[in-house]
Amino acid sequence: MSSISTVKDRTELLKWISEEYQGLNGTHYDVMETSPNALEFSRLVHISRPVLIKNSEAPDAMSRWTDQYLIQKMGNSKISVAVTPNGRADAVTTGPDGKQYFAEPYVQRLTMSSFLAALSSGDSNSREEVRYLQSQNGNMFRSSYFDVHDAEDEPSEFEALREDVPSEIPWCSEALDRPPDAVNLWIGDSASVTSIHSDPYENVYTVIRGAKHFTLLPPTEGWCLSERVYPHSTYMRSPTTNKLVLDPSSSEVPEVRWSSVTDPTVPGALPPEAHPIHITVEAGQTLYLPAGWWHFVRQTQVTIAINYWYDMESRGMVWVWLNTLRGLLEPPSGNDVVESAEHS
Amino acid sequence: MSSISTVKDRTELLKWISEEYQGLNGTHYDVMETSPNALEFSRLVHISRPVLIKNSEAPDAMSRWTDQYLIQKMGNSKISVAVTPNGRADAVTTGPDGKQYFAEPYVQRLTMSSFLAALSSGDSNSREEVRYLQSQNGNMFRSSYFDVHDAEDEPSEFEALREDVPSEIPWCSEALDRPPDAVNLWIGDSASVTSIHSDPYENVYTVIRGAKHFTLLPPTEGWCLSERVYPHSTYMRSPTTNKLVLDPSSSEVPEVRWSSVTDPTVPGALPPEAHPIHITVEAGQTLYLPAGWWHFVRQTQVTIAINYWYDMESRGMVWVWLNTLRGLLEPPSGNDVVESAEHS
Repeated sequence: MSSISTVKDRTELLKWISEEYQGLNGTHYDVMETSPNALEFSRLVHISRPVLIKNSEAPDAMSRWTDQYLIQKMGNSKISVAVTPNGRADAVTTGPDGKQYFAEPYVQRLTMSSFLAALSSGDSNSREEVRYLQSQNGNMFRSSYFDVHDAEDEPSEFEALREDVPSEIPWCSEALDRPPDAVNLWIGDSASVTSIHSDPYENVYTVIRGAKHFTLLPPTEGWCLSERVYPHSTYMRSPTTNKLVLDPSSSEVPEVRWSSVTDPTVPGALPPEAHPIHITVEAGQTLYLPAGWWHFVRQTQVTIAINYWYDMESRGMVWVWLNTLRGLLEPPSGNDVVESAEHS
Repeated sequence: MSSISTVKDRTELLKWISEEYQGLNGTHYDVMETSPNALEFSRLVHISRPVLIKNSEAPDAMSRWTDQYLIQKMGNSKISVAVTPNGRADAVTTGPDGKQYFAEPYVQRLTMSSFLAALSSGDSNSREEVRYLQSQNGNMFRSSYFDVHDAEDEPSEFEALREDVPSEIPWCSEALDRPPDAVNLWIGDSASVTSIHSDPYENVYTVIRGAKHFTLLPPTEGWCLSERVYPHSTYMRSPTTNKLVLDPSSSEVPEVRWSSVTDPTVPGALPPEAHPIHITVEAGQTLYLPAGWWHFVRQTQVTIAINYWYDMESRGMVWVWLNTLRGLLEPPSGNDVVESAEHS
């Protein structure tokens, strides 16, 4: 291993740090047969490596959530579904002007019945429009729910399903000494992916149906993801054709810093210094994804999952460490370095 | 706060990191009325900030350890005591050739009776020789004790006092999921100080008699301590005069990297970017001193303390973070930069 004293610039420093981290930790991740208790989980949070829990406590959703049950429970209430032409919401995409944009999805309000019908229609990989329930705003429970402790004061589009989903994970809330900041329901199929990114949250992710395929990189390997800054845009429906078109936001909307790597599972997409960890989370299993870890997520079938985001510990060194790793490189504009940006 | 993107060199990067850390954490430390339980301590280890516990569980030593009791229990057995001319064992000092050295103490084997008599004789600040019981090798219990679980297989100079000192701290061992690596007894007075340094151990420090005055700096402010490398030396007794003289080690003994700041409590000894935390630990109180924190320790009266060193978590990011902070600056030779080295 090279010495830090010979490091010449920021990129070399990041390479040195990621090599040290890799030398110490490798690509190992713990696999537990059952959920940890609060103390065990607290230790795992300190280590901050992914953990796969093979037999987590099954929420009632596990046994109940057939399509029929979901449709019947949700009835005519509308849910907010992300719609894109390519299944890549919150991702970098090429606009009609040939420029690269960070694209937020069009949000359509559908009944559960029509959403599930859309998911199961035809070949998932040849649809003109891809739907993904991925609202990420605490669509099941959000932090204010734990303040008011009165579900009626804090309604959810998924009110009718709340009885099947615990509002928090006891061993996790106890370890972190706080309730979740957001609990989200995800429903999608192979047409949708989640582009690689990291969150400042401790993430506990339980699969209810299907399977989620995670590609993970530690915070130390963020420099391998060639982040760029991209102008912001949102898909809208053209009033004339009714098709989805990318609508660039006004210049007042801040640009978005995002990885230019579209699919880190494609050979050659990452530099040789990256050591991705591939973990498949099957129905009934739970992944602990530590704060700051980079993750790319896909599924090969209709998959339902619930994730719990807990605020990470902001005191101490972890926050500063993550900011240092991320801040050392100043990302160039995504449209100045087209040669290294991959097109979708 | 300045932006990391304008940082030009390693020193500026370290300044940026310590400013970020300071902005987030300030000089706050938690004060607890009673000891934490294992889960609470696990959370505190993750935050990695000092914690003062005002009423820790008193070991039997608290009520029993009068001079008379210690002398009677220890009888004629000899204990290893550090002897220096200036009370600064394991510290930078000026040799007879005018060069700066890292000096290890002369080790003398004394009875408890003669050691305590030496401590209480005359003015502690005008002695020709200063004695400090500070062997730091697990003089009460060392890690192998916990392997063999048979005190007779793992003798200690302080065998006779073991019954008064718990071999581990239950809430700490449970939180860290391991026994201590070393348990040390410290006995000294105002003539002795511990020079500022950091250890890769979680340190739980209980004062039995007297009081310890700690000056602490977070790992992010290590750059404020102007580390240098010094040739190694050990005090020996001159065969002719019987006085302590500094004996430079052979050139095969590696040089020692050490802070050139002799006393960080002297005004101006630290740069303005340093934010030392001063904590006095009284008898019956316990300090949690997290791994990697810099500490300078003194006492103004005869003080007895027990400290528990636990191996820090080597998995994950903390170890790499501490190595990065410490490794970014290459320390110059202490004898090339005499103008910035303080003389004792």
